[in-house]
Amino acid sequence: MNTVAIVGVGLIGGSFALALREAGFAGKIIGVSSPGAVRVAIEHRIIDEALPLPEAAALADLIYLARPIEGILSVLDELDAYVKPGALVTDAGSTKAAICARAAEKIHRARFVGGHPMAGKESRGAGEAEASLFRNRPYILTSDSPELEHLIASIGARIVKISAGEHDRLVALTSHLPQLISTALASSIRTEPEASRVAGPAAMDLTRLALSPYEIWRDIFATNADNIDSALGVFIAKLESLRSQLRSAQMEQEFNAASAAARRLRAKDVISPL
Amino acid sequence: MNTVAIVGVGLIGGSFALALREAGFAGKIIGVSSPGAVRVAIEHRIIDEALPLPEAAALADLIYLARPIEGILSVLDELDAYVKPGALVTDAGSTKAAICARAAEKIHRARFVGGHPMAGKESRGAGEAEASLFRNRPYILTSDSPELEHLIASIGARIVKISAGEHDRLVALTSHLPQLISTALASSIRTEPEASRVAGPAAMDLTRLALSPYEIWRDIFATNADNIDSALGVFIAKLESLRSQLRSAQMEQEFNAASAAARRLRAKDVISPL
Repeated sequence: MNTVAIVGVGLIGGSFALALREAGFAGKIIGVSSPGAVRVAIEHRIIDEALPLPEAAALADLIYLARPIEGILSVLDELDAYVKPGALVTDAGSTKAAICARAAEKIHRARFVGGHPMAGKESRGAGEAEASLFRNRPYILTSDSPELEHLIASIGARIVKISAGEHDRLVALTSHLPQLISTALASSIRTEPEASRVAGPAAMDLTRLALSPYEIWRDIFATNADNIDSALGVFIAKLESLRSQLRSAQMEQEFNAASAAARRLRAKDVISPL
Repeated sequence: MNTVAIVGVGLIGGSFALALREAGFAGKIIGVSSPGAVRVAIEHRIIDEALPLPEAAALADLIYLARPIEGILSVLDELDAYVKPGALVTDAGSTKAAICARAAEKIHRARFVGGHPMAGKESRGAGEAEASLFRNRPYILTSDSPELEHLIASIGARIVKISAGEHDRLVALTSHLPQLISTALASSIRTEPEASRVAGPAAMDLTRLALSPYEIWRDIFATNADNIDSALGVFIAKLESLRSQLRSAQMEQEFNAASAAARRLRAKDVISPL
């Protein structure tokens, strides 16, 4: 692999480029991005040069799509005509079913593997990129690709292979539901102007996600609404059940079970039956 | 003020003692606690000596009640007989109405001021105590007391004066609701054994509170269930409203309003109309 094209050089695309370098990749990294993002990425030595998509795709052995979901979908619509035959194309989109379906429909001359690094931070842009962003984080791949798996392992991420549909169902619960919870909590606290005077660490922790910009969420809701609706249903039913037990001794078992589940999420080595 | 008695030398009581020392308090600090807690507190030079409640109360100019709520209520039942007349008694209990009512009923020879430092961390016990735990955190006081206000200001906390009933109503939203949300989210994720494989920072952030032990929550639910029920009602209605808007452009306004509320919670100087 001699040349990598990063399409969308923001926090994720930029961090992937830095992580590749740190893992010893000595080839060329080309950025395809807006003039502003390209300037930042070159200043921070994240990419070697910037090119328009057709030229970059023609040179690249690996094309890494790190735009928001709608941006990835529209690149997939035109990419096949430009790619070097047999090149590897992957993405970092937050939902997978819509993207993998579009790739299956449109990409014929290259190999596509859906991807999703479960990493991020509050600040955005290539200026915030970090080589260590993916380290010890789950990195979902939707199909087999020894070449890509080797690369992802080399940047320190934990590869999780799972179908696109299963991915979308699970992240509805672990990522999209938390976002909506945080937004709803911040909105609820907003109804009490005095609440900010007594807000402690719990309110701070749980409203942090509410600071996320809507623009990345629009596409997630558009491509995963059914799964998110189901996850909200499960969560609201659980919350109503806790509500009915506020004065009941049963609550202790609920707390213990939830605490065990929260600890399990934090276990370093998750054993999977898959 | 020459002598302070800390009743319940755990994370909060221990941190209060360390904060007093750091603020220049040169008098004696007596601990009233279990043998295990006393041993840790003496090892860490948090208290000067340990005494049973009657002896400690007889010597103390300030009595700081830092047990769980039920423990505070039971100390208030017997404390009046032991206190030095005119001593100041305050507490750090997580709800205020039940405690202030009990104090009004039982404490006649000393002055009682309800208190609640909005600070804490996941780990517990005097061994985890920190002099800086209250710094820049809200510290609620339920009535006027120039002497106590001076002390609380000296340890770097932000004094918030508010009635016991108003406190309980507001913390139901900012503290008790977040706990139940986190517990319900961890329980919801538990229904999907595969979810832990894809859990990223959002799931980690929002399930952290679910690790809290039930024992401190039993008393909170017992003494604030009505306010918590109301807060749950507001939150669930907001979440159902977001659920109905997953595919609507209206969602952008919801995100912007919630994001503004979350930023307001983080504003350094909260202007209050009170």
